[in-house]
Amino acid sequence: MNQVIQLLNAHRSIRKFTDKPVSQEQINRFIQAGQAAATSSFIQACTVIQVNDSEKRASLAEWAGNQTYVKEAPTFLVFCADMKRHQLSCDMHDAEMLSGFTEQFITATVDCGLFAQNVAIAAESEGLGVVYIGGLRNKIDLVSDALNLPELVYPVFGMCIGDPDQDPEVKPRLPLDVVLKHDQYDDSQDKELIAAYDQDVQAYYKSRTGGQKDMTWSEQISGMLQKEARPHMLSFLQQRGFLQK
Amino acid sequence: MNQVIQLLNAHRSIRKFTDKPVSQEQINRFIQAGQAAATSSFIQACTVIQVNDSEKRASLAEWAGNQTYVKEAPTFLVFCADMKRHQLSCDMHDAEMLSGFTEQFITATVDCGLFAQNVAIAAESEGLGVVYIGGLRNKIDLVSDALNLPELVYPVFGMCIGDPDQDPEVKPRLPLDVVLKHDQYDDSQDKELIAAYDQDVQAYYKSRTGGQKDMTWSEQISGMLQKEARPHMLSFLQQRGFLQK
Repeated sequence: MNQVIQLLNAHRSIRKFTDKPVSQEQINRFIQAGQAAATSSFIQACTVIQVNDSEKRASLAEWAGNQTYVKEAPTFLVFCADMKRHQLSCDMHDAEMLSGFTEQFITATVDCGLFAQNVAIAAESEGLGVVYIGGLRNKIDLVSDALNLPELVYPVFGMCIGDPDQDPEVKPRLPLDVVLKHDQYDDSQDKELIAAYDQDVQAYYKSRTGGQKDMTWSEQISGMLQKEARPHMLSFLQQRGFLQK
Repeated sequence: MNQVIQLLNAHRSIRKFTDKPVSQEQINRFIQAGQAAATSSFIQACTVIQVNDSEKRASLAEWAGNQTYVKEAPTFLVFCADMKRHQLSCDMHDAEMLSGFTEQFITATVDCGLFAQNVAIAAESEGLGVVYIGGLRNKIDLVSDALNLPELVYPVFGMCIGDPDQDPEVKPRLPLDVVLKHDQYDDSQDKELIAAYDQDVQAYYKSRTGGQKDMTWSEQISGMLQKEARPHMLSFLQQRGFLQK
């Protein structure tokens, strides 16, 4: 296994950082590495808002569900799916833009995913730690207003970056046979495989929390799915010009 | 710039491969690197179908818009957003699953993006080339049926992997100031910056095609956006249990 793959496999979310700053040169380098990722039909639909303003950071941390590291991390980035510059391109050529398609929502959102993962890996390659912040979508309207996001732009997730001040274990993942299928989707073995994996996750949580957290993967997932998942998202996105058809 | 960031920056899509096979050990290693990526609330919502069957490959190549490399590449993977195993987890705990939320569609789709980008980087780190295949969504219903995808699973994109038999230039990306904003979204300079970037893209296309392709970025984007974007996507996804609310 080469060093790049070792780096990928060593990922764990970091939620506690030292005060050591991340330089603007580093951030720019990470963003440029993000841009180098593949982009669907060259749309380049990811825009990053780097939030340094401490009041905004405090608000974002609160809206994300009181995740204090959003406020405290040396660097905080918000990755936005952005079709506004496509509108600008159409305006430059007197073209009428057909927008609102679900397909466009997918390509812009995936673009942000690929871009952000390159940013994460670039940061980790320089010894930094990161955590993705999906909690921004708790209050996606307030976040969008605070960052002055226009129509055709939405914040997909945030990311904290900084020098790690903790060293959590890598979390065990599902067995390969659950996530890799051959020629067709066949989940006939999945229940058994997940039941075995549940034991690994339970052992991981127990060891990490000194026995306090005693939960399997399937329990955790089933608990989460009994609640509504941010039911405001669809109407918000439609108001902003996405997912209309 | 360290070697990892150099690798990220060296990405270009590869659409022509030698016959040199990619071993199953390599593929498994890439998939496990994919699994190591961050996953929203630990949902692990990406399933990969490795398609070796040559008839299926031929069909997928045709449905993707006659992209012959989908058939010819040593390895072809289909990345699927998968909530089926979440349903299974709920069944294991007699829990009622609340599904169909746009939020769940986003987290599952983003999971696939992060996962796939790790797979791409792992493959590139071993000297292989890759190309993402969004064209599978042209005929997403046929693709889903051919791979036996159940409800709550959809194919986000494919990926060809193999030993490169071409050496295209890296494609120039938007200026940093267009994609990185500070504290708020401000696009007042974007039109000017994009106009300058348009010249870079035009020069890139001209040099790559011996003068035959003469197009700027904004022209390309505006041309694409005058057409409907896969208008079948929303109804298909809703039938499969996604984006219902």
